[in-house]
Amino acid sequence: MTRLFNDPAAFADEALEGFAAAHRRWVRPVTGGVVRAGGTPAGQVAVVIGGGSGHYPAFSGLVGRGLAHGAAVGNVFASPSAQQIRSVARAAHAGGGVLLMYGNYAGDVLHFGQAAERLAADGVEARTFAVTDDISSAAPEESAKRRGIAGDLPVFKAAAAAAEQGLPLAEVLAVAERANARTRSFGIAFSGCTLPGADHPLFTVPEARMAVGLGIHGEPGIGEEALPTADEAARLLVTHLLAELPDGVTAPAGERAAVILNGLGSVKYEELFVVYRKVAELLGDAGVEIVDPEVGELVTSFDMAGVSLTLTWLDDRLEELWRAPADTPAYRKGAFGAPEAEAVARPADGTGTVADEPADEALPDASEDSRRAAGTVLAALTAIAGTVDTHVEELGRIDAVAGDGDHGIGMQRGATAARQAATTAYGLGAGAGTVLTRAADAWADKAGGTSGALWGSILRALGTTLGDQEAPSADRVAAGAAEASAAVRRLGGAEVGDRTMVDVLVPFADTLSAATASGLALAEAWDRAAGAAESAAAATAELLPRKGRARPHAEKSLGTPDAGAHSLALITRAVHGVLLPHSPNQH
Amino acid sequence: MTRLFNDPAAFADEALEGFAAAHRRWVRPVTGGVVRAGGTPAGQVAVVIGGGSGHYPAFSGLVGRGLAHGAAVGNVFASPSAQQIRSVARAAHAGGGVLLMYGNYAGDVLHFGQAAERLAADGVEARTFAVTDDISSAAPEESAKRRGIAGDLPVFKAAAAAAEQGLPLAEVLAVAERANARTRSFGIAFSGCTLPGADHPLFTVPEARMAVGLGIHGEPGIGEEALPTADEAARLLVTHLLAELPDGVTAPAGERAAVILNGLGSVKYEELFVVYRKVAELLGDAGVEIVDPEVGELVTSFDMAGVSLTLTWLDDRLEELWRAPADTPAYRKGAFGAPEAEAVARPADGTGTVADEPADEALPDASEDSRRAAGTVLAALTAIAGTVDTHVEELGRIDAVAGDGDHGIGMQRGATAARQAATTAYGLGAGAGTVLTRAADAWADKAGGTSGALWGSILRALGTTLGDQEAPSADRVAAGAAEASAAVRRLGGAEVGDRTMVDVLVPFADTLSAATASGLALAEAWDRAAGAAESAAAATAELLPRKGRARPHAEKSLGTPDAGAHSLALITRAVHGVLLPHSPNQH
Repeated sequence: MTRLFNDPAAFADEALEGFAAAHRRWVRPVTGGVVRAGGTPAGQVAVVIGGGSGHYPAFSGLVGRGLAHGAAVGNVFASPSAQQIRSVARAAHAGGGVLLMYGNYAGDVLHFGQAAERLAADGVEARTFAVTDDISSAAPEESAKRRGIAGDLPVFKAAAAAAEQGLPLAEVLAVAERANARTRSFGIAFSGCTLPGADHPLFTVPEARMAVGLGIHGEPGIGEEALPTADEAARLLVTHLLAELPDGVTAPAGERAAVILNGLGSVKYEELFVVYRKVAELLGDAGVEIVDPEVGELVTSFDMAGVSLTLTWLDDRLEELWRAPADTPAYRKGAFGAPEAEAVARPADGTGTVADEPADEALPDASEDSRRAAGTVLAALTAIAGTVDTHVEELGRIDAVAGDGDHGIGMQRGATAARQAATTAYGLGAGAGTVLTRAADAWADKAGGTSGALWGSILRALGTTLGDQEAPSADRVAAGAAEASAAVRRLGGAEVGDRTMVDVLVPFADTLSAATASGLALAEAWDRAAGAAESAAAATAELLPRKGRARPHAEKSLGTPDAGAHSLALITRAVHGVLLPHSPNQH
Repeated sequence: MTRLFNDPAAFADEALEGFAAAHRRWVRPVTGGVVRAGGTPAGQVAVVIGGGSGHYPAFSGLVGRGLAHGAAVGNVFASPSAQQIRSVARAAHAGGGVLLMYGNYAGDVLHFGQAAERLAADGVEARTFAVTDDISSAAPEESAKRRGIAGDLPVFKAAAAAAEQGLPLAEVLAVAERANARTRSFGIAFSGCTLPGADHPLFTVPEARMAVGLGIHGEPGIGEEALPTADEAARLLVTHLLAELPDGVTAPAGERAAVILNGLGSVKYEELFVVYRKVAELLGDAGVEIVDPEVGELVTSFDMAGVSLTLTWLDDRLEELWRAPADTPAYRKGAFGAPEAEAVARPADGTGTVADEPADEALPDASEDSRRAAGTVLAALTAIAGTVDTHVEELGRIDAVAGDGDHGIGMQRGATAARQAATTAYGLGAGAGTVLTRAADAWADKAGGTSGALWGSILRALGTTLGDQEAPSADRVAAGAAEASAAVRRLGGAEVGDRTMVDVLVPFADTLSAATASGLALAEAWDRAAGAAESAAAATAELLPRKGRARPHAEKSLGTPDAGAHSLALITRAVHGVLLPHSPNQH
């Protein structure tokens, strides 16, 4: 378990600070993460990786020559926000464009995708790439839905080594695609980690048993078996990986492979070596030539007891990239011909400098009507933060049934930050729309994770619809809710029936639109919509899981409502309390 | 806990095999451990490190350019045998002599000391050096008695970097002495590791508490305190180390220090970074300049949950050596000017080759009397192995009270190997003396640890005294026991009253001598001596621990006999059973 921390809420930030202090030779901290201390060489594609904290050396430990140019570092097991990613990417960018790389998790897909859009708006060419190596997380015909585990390393490294060779962005992306297509991982686990401040592990496995195919955040595995000997474990891992060869590899014999035997945290080095001994023997028996194997802790999950095997099937090009030198805090290999000082700290793209922080945008003018409505918005955001505070443990408990249990603290971070940003914007004279968009950015930035991205979208859609000029009529609020509903479906890739917050948001927005269209005042219409939201949230506990889900995290246990759906219902009800006294004036 | 293994008795060997398979770029396996794949450059002092398994990357992970030239790898938590160390040292030697380096533990001191003597006999100049960085393990005025923990790394590295610069053996040793004198560590722990095949941890700490000053094998700490925050833990570690500055450092302000924050296995990277953040701040406040800090797992204890802080107070020379490049499986730093291929694989000391294995010595001739006695010796060794088999769990349980619980399996490995070697030698026609000396070497080689070295000495002393010519009279056997008693006291540095096997061996040998001198037949005399041994073993449970002990391991809990004393008493009784039928003929 994690025992040494101060304030659990500050854990990830403090860890990043200590990491940067210990590794000044390689990295320098920027808002949202770290970049190479020596900067990105002018014109080179910047490979910016990232993900939640708790997986060290993924992700910050892999920044340095021959590997990543920067890492965006999220909260514990939560994606960095789009804002963090954008900040790191801007600091790493040196005129050659940016490739954003991450493991395939819903929150990361959302935030990195949004960051790429914002970078494009900033004039920075950006592409995204999600690693999908874990064969246990989806069937071969749905391999794009697989999550990324220790295969992150060889895929990141292939792309970064190609960038180091001076290839343009499109070709670096093509290398990432090829490396990912030829990379497969499979894992087993014996116990879950205990997060900072938590008093029990994310999951447990009965004594003398093991979970097969488990994810690195405690996502359910595909089965449970008796605890194997080291040799049996090796055989299980190798057998699974040899059973699914990538396109273009017809048989293992005569092939070359990069091999990574990865410890998740508490399966220690000597154990890994005992397992590797048999892995090497079995791959040798199958005729596979092992190239530069790695046995150690490369993608961890705090002190989770587990181990995974990764194979990257190499062609000549991938072998060259895998063998290329790297010099990072946690991964060093070979030696560079030229001294590190040749890298330049600043881009030569004509601008001369890169700001770590996007500059503050000016506050748009607001009408008196909108200023008055902004007061109501601030009150609503304050009520939301209060409701989330009250229910934070309940939301965590619900989420822990099927997820990683951090929905409560993520919502709390987001709602608190949104309230603070709204207070500041309101104090500066912002209208309702700007108060909401500022709150949206703060929520997404501080909450991280999937819920952070989705709540950021909800508030942003509302804010954009309301604007800073017209008085927010009930119809306009309903239109904003409809926009929010559409945005969440678009971003999250989920539909009604997938047992997510979409199941609640859609009936809420639809009911609100119908009620306001029928002439009800906002408060009354909102009351009706909140009732629909509450019914829908309760119903998420009873639906059967749908097959072929886009979100690897999202298989819920029956009988428990979806945490995101439940928190949305709570929030709609809390906001109703704010609307009530104002409703006579707002119809 | 350690979950992935095959036969627990084969764990260390299989781990070493897997380690070597994964790291062919750096190391090649030899009997007893590994040496650099590229060999030792001609004429360079070879730094050979070593210790028990279970501490990876100590010790095999630290072999490579800029660091060790070879590592002797013992069984789990047991010193490598003198034979293993000699074998590795001979393979690493390239004409410049050998510096044997290890942490200061009784078993390691014994085996490395014996190895140095054997190397000298082989014509290889060898020196030994024990690292003593753990300030919690003895008072400042007894600093030579302190054990070695994570301070191993900077002391090994300083000496190895000096060797890399071409310094002669005496100067490399002087560098080791200076680095060790300026290196201090202090640790805390929350739970012990569970060894392969064991079903409970070596020690436990009550929930929400921590042990202060604990050793890396579960040796008792100096106190227990409430679980701290990360910042409090940092303050505790820094305060202890700043309270004991080395000679020549009057105040921390203005000094430079290499800093190592070492995780023992289950305190993971992000936790270490949170602690390091405060360590760096506190050292900065004290005016200490931190040079090339290391935060990670460098000397582990399987999955023990603990952390230690090490400071090496640098002068210009030590800073140069600390900053020097290194390229090993687990520790890489900087870059070498010349390619690795310039190192030569073979020594240029005139011999042309180095054998990994010392050549078999020819079997000395034996008289008929001695051949007959050799049969009795073989029967006795067979009885010893049988007795140890029968009591292996009991011995482990007794040892676990104050030690690491491996006395039973260590004795079993040793006694089994001794019986096998004796059987082989007897089959080849060896006399009693040679059967015993072959058994002695096998016992020490396979058992490892302190008990392995001591039992090797006992059998060797008996064998040397009996020889291969004369019939072993009762007087001669008693003289052999007296030799063995003297050898164990000399090697182990313990005296009667220290609650070790010496408490049993001395009265056994004294009683045997007195009884044979008074004219008793061997069996009868032995019976009397075995009785004295049994009484003495029982008494070790009641003696108060003696202050100022030379052996860091040896503080025993009251009420439990010393495991080594107990096994010796069991063995003397078992041998008596073999002597009985022969006694009429042997007076």
